[in-house]
Amino acid sequence: MEQKYVVGIDLGGTKIAGALVDFNGNILRKSSLPTNAWEGEKEVSSRILKVVDELLNNEGQEIVVDTEEIKAIGIGSPGPLDVKKGMIVNSANLPFKNFNVVSLVEERYNIKTYLDNDANVAAIGENVFGAGIGTENMIYITISTGIGGGAILNGKIYRGSTCNALEIGHITVMADGPICNCGNHGCAEALASGTGIGKMANKKLETGVESSLTQYEKVTSKEVFIEAAKGDKVAEEILENSLNYFGICVANAITIFDPEMIVIGGGVSKGGKIVFDTVNKVVKERCFSVMVENCKIVPAALGEDAGAVGAAALAIMESK
Amino acid sequence: MEQKYVVGIDLGGTKIAGALVDFNGNILRKSSLPTNAWEGEKEVSSRILKVVDELLNNEGQEIVVDTEEIKAIGIGSPGPLDVKKGMIVNSANLPFKNFNVVSLVEERYNIKTYLDNDANVAAIGENVFGAGIGTENMIYITISTGIGGGAILNGKIYRGSTCNALEIGHITVMADGPICNCGNHGCAEALASGTGIGKMANKKLETGVESSLTQYEKVTSKEVFIEAAKGDKVAEEILENSLNYFGICVANAITIFDPEMIVIGGGVSKGGKIVFDTVNKVVKERCFSVMVENCKIVPAALGEDAGAVGAAALAIMESK
Repeated sequence: MEQKYVVGIDLGGTKIAGALVDFNGNILRKSSLPTNAWEGEKEVSSRILKVVDELLNNEGQEIVVDTEEIKAIGIGSPGPLDVKKGMIVNSANLPFKNFNVVSLVEERYNIKTYLDNDANVAAIGENVFGAGIGTENMIYITISTGIGGGAILNGKIYRGSTCNALEIGHITVMADGPICNCGNHGCAEALASGTGIGKMANKKLETGVESSLTQYEKVTSKEVFIEAAKGDKVAEEILENSLNYFGICVANAITIFDPEMIVIGGGVSKGGKIVFDTVNKVVKERCFSVMVENCKIVPAALGEDAGAVGAAALAIMESK
Repeated sequence: MEQKYVVGIDLGGTKIAGALVDFNGNILRKSSLPTNAWEGEKEVSSRILKVVDELLNNEGQEIVVDTEEIKAIGIGSPGPLDVKKGMIVNSANLPFKNFNVVSLVEERYNIKTYLDNDANVAAIGENVFGAGIGTENMIYITISTGIGGGAILNGKIYRGSTCNALEIGHITVMADGPICNCGNHGCAEALASGTGIGKMANKKLETGVESSLTQYEKVTSKEVFIEAAKGDKVAEEILENSLNYFGICVANAITIFDPEMIVIGGGVSKGGKIVFDTVNKVVKERCFSVMVENCKIVPAALGEDAGAVGAAALAIMESK
């Protein structure tokens, strides 16, 4: 029977989301269940299988899908993982410790299954089905609470030796910069992530500057973006300063990888024109023109189903 | 006839160096001629062929080598290059412009020939025959007049989309740092290369500090290393400051590539214990421990014939 489909599973702290996807990224079926991590390993792993069962259930479906038509299953999970063994080593928001989620799924369905971390799955999703289709060397960078990334190099995901490659939020861009959650000083993440922007704003407001930001009881990156868009100069200045460091992070990625494309996703990337304008400006200032001219910097294209669709893309890339 | 050998050619501004090497990196024969770049394209390309002819000449040799026993030829050259076409686009120290050196050699000997830039050839040399034997993910960084690099990822050289990957000396490590030759501010190269160390030293001496460095008419990184080794506090401070930025450059490479090994070569890397001590200290402070524990930081192992032997290693890696 011809193989036509893959299954993607996104293990999140809130929900387990699944999708049955064809090789062009069209979603045939979706399914999800709440994670309810507090119920523990046994319950949560049984819900993972329920999500897959639901995707494979032909009842009431127009197109009947045979299990033999499914080429592979991909699973995206927060880390740390042991990707080679198919194991979730542990995770803050899932009840798993040294848990072999790949064995769980493979044994039940007898379909080849692959695991990878969220950032790599997002990178693969954009490369196979999203903004980066057709690129051989593509760097995905996500900027939200933190800054993370994944690299497609020579058409394959690059994982590094301990599967921790592309911790790009933790490169130093300011030697004596503010302390980061990781313990280092001056990481891009400490200066430019959503959390970083919020911290920089509160520090600025403590100096007693006049700003429309003072109307809020609590200022996070969201309020900074809102007030900057309304023309508040202090909010603009905070953003420009933080986004300048994010621009350096992107510029360093270009100087190191010489990629065809940088795909930027995550909540902060949706903060409007100022984000991509600042990144493009910094990159032009700091990188060799031959690399800048060759490299497109674009927003991520996959929407709300990015997690499950990215996991499906992992199944496609790895089973090639 | 069994293929047992490769030929490596190093095109330098001073000399054209060649080596006939077996698959274990043993040099059977060496040959070299002065480049004399001013004599122009025709003369210099004829000397390249003379160097190869000499390597293939069995006269007076104990081991007779048949041309059919040679698997491939590798050429290392300063860039920019068009590696895919086998072309030297242009070069400051060679008389070539859009010159297809690969065709020149392939047409004469009918042996598959490969071209790459100096930094990549050095990286491949260390990976195939030097400090990085057996590593799958290895970053080579050279620190001398400038700072450059090459990456072996998943066992292959990574070139990037325009063959300019690993311009690691030009990542920004200090946003408002001193201007670099490339026009950017705060590149690792501007702060920490041999040239950078010399500049930082002269800037420091202009402030009128007391230092044994004042005895010299001209202070370069060489004098800074000499006086620091003798215990001059100012020289030590200059070195620690510069090498701290080089350490950040290495730390960022580890955070991005998660490699098994960093190999450090180039003149400044031979500046004594202080170089590797500082790099190791900074890396420990700035990188995730799981990556640090997995990654060895070692000096380059190939000696004076590194250029030709590296080019031979290119021939081996690419003809696999």
